[in-house]
Amino acid sequence: MGKNELESALPEYFAPWVQALGLMVESFDTDSVTLRLAQNPQLSRVGGMLCGQAMMAAADTAMVLALINQFGEFRPCTTVQMNTSFLKPLSNQDALVQARVMRAGKSLAFGEIDIRGAADGKSVSRSGVTYALL
Amino acid sequence: MGKNELESALPEYFAPWVQALGLMVESFDTDSVTLRLAQNPQLSRVGGMLCGQAMMAAADTAMVLALINQFGEFRPCTTVQMNTSFLKPLSNQDALVQARVMRAGKSLAFGEIDIRGAADGKSVSRSGVTYALL
Amino acid sequence: MGKNELESALPEYFAPWVQALGLMVESFDTDSVTLRLAQNPQLSRVGGMLCGQAMMAAADTAMVLALINQFGEFRPCTTVQMNTSFLKPLSNQDALVQARVMRAGKSLAFGEIDIRGAADGKSVSRSGVTYALL
Amino acid sequence: MGKNELESALPEYFAPWVQALGLMVESFDTDSVTLRLAQNPQLSRVGGMLCGQAMMAAADTAMVLALINQFGEFRPCTTVQMNTSFLKPLSNQDALVQARVMRAGKSLAFGEIDIRGAADGKSVSRSGVTYALL
Repeated sequence: MGKNELESALPEYFAPWVQALGLMVESFDTDSVTLRLAQNPQLSRVGGMLCGQAMMAAADTAMVLALINQFGEFRPCTTVQMNTSFLKPLSNQDALVQARVMRAGKSLAFGEIDIRGAADGKSVSRSGVTYALL
Repeated sequence: MGKNELESALPEYFAPWVQALGLMVESFDTDSVTLRLAQNPQLSRVGGMLCGQAMMAAADTAMVLALINQFGEFRPCTTVQMNTSFLKPLSNQDALVQARVMRAGKSLAFGEIDIRGAADGKSVSRSGVTYALL
Repeated sequence: MGKNELESALPEYFAPWVQALGLMVESFDTDSVTLRLAQNPQLSRVGGMLCGQAMMAAADTAMVLALINQFGEFRPCTTVQMNTSFLKPLSNQDALVQARVMRAGKSLAFGEIDIRGAADGKSVSRSGVTYALL
Repeated sequence: MGKNELESALPEYFAPWVQALGLMVESFDTDSVTLRLAQNPQLSRVGGMLCGQAMMAAADTAMVLALINQFGEFRPCTTVQMNTSFLKPLSNQDALVQARVMRAGKSLAFGEIDIRGAADGKSVSRSGVTYALL
């Protein structure tokens, strides 16, 4: 799969409200996809910090793309469980959202997502997700 | 606090993208707040199902209101950890998002959020959150 | 199923180290099972507090019994994900470990576990678990 | 700190039932500690698989040692939240339990734990934890 094919999954499989995050494919390899979440006042609370809700939504979205990338196609799947630790706030920079497939079995897939500042490279949130493959 | 005061917290403390969920205060008591998330094609994936990203965002938001309600005022706080189990899909109905404060200590608060169909009353997601009180 | 049948699942399906918790079936109904975890210096850290490791082990174990109770028999299953919030410490009393099946589908089951003091009735930990049914 | 000092924390700060896991310090560096959990029929379910309860207990324990290692001394702390994904079963080999401090602030610390087979090096569980520093 190429970058364009991955990016085209965003309007195809996600709700308009998720598309409004403006996620862009930054890079990918065999088992991971990295998206860029650009600085955006729409996603910021007072004080200019990226809201946690946007971090969780970006993390879940990135993981679906990482699964598409790994499988070479979209496979119907549903998020079963997601947990996120918020290590520190992010402000005044884009975020890089890296989703990695930890294990993809026949009926379940596990992934982890790291969100870090695009400028300072520091992790701001860490998520784990479980997907059911339908 | 009254319903109007709680509702007025939404534009005051949340990012515009979170406000776009259109959450409304449905009811509240001492330790819980219930919001209504109206059916909205902007929040739906193909097939008309409410996207999981919107559920997580609504859950986190409802919990902040439950803390405001419990404290009688907004206290600066930050989400430390959030986990969500997605029990089943939701479609063709509004969602009711009930956030309950399980314990509010001096520096940490714990809450749980249940999202259920407004029409059929069935739970579709369950979240637990930890907040640091600043 | 009766209380004796449920209790007999403990030596049958659990590791000896888990059996050493000394869990006993306290009560059960259609979708929940409550176990008693007796006060035990083997499970306590300095200061007499029940260690978190024992809470998590008891919670996971109680959930397996709740599934056996709900299905009317042991079905092979495996824990996929478990998360626990530790609300407050427990000391100087037994613990009651209540596991509730939230949803049991064809391939996945979801449950929640509350651990509370047997004397004061206050919740000390809350867990959510996901099981894969094999 | 040396390996002996870290190892001596096990009988000092943990419940006897946790000590029965027989954890040994394998290695450590600035922000991580790796423990070895030896194969042990006491920790195995029928079929010889390491039980999930032991994985969670070992993970939590390893993280406390990683914090001791990072701080250079034991600081009173309490587990606030822990979540674990069980990727695959482990049998017929020791487990290596690597705990890494992701961020240690003034009042909260975050860590992640990977458990892998000592023989095949494959990850079998992944945990995230939040600690409150007292």
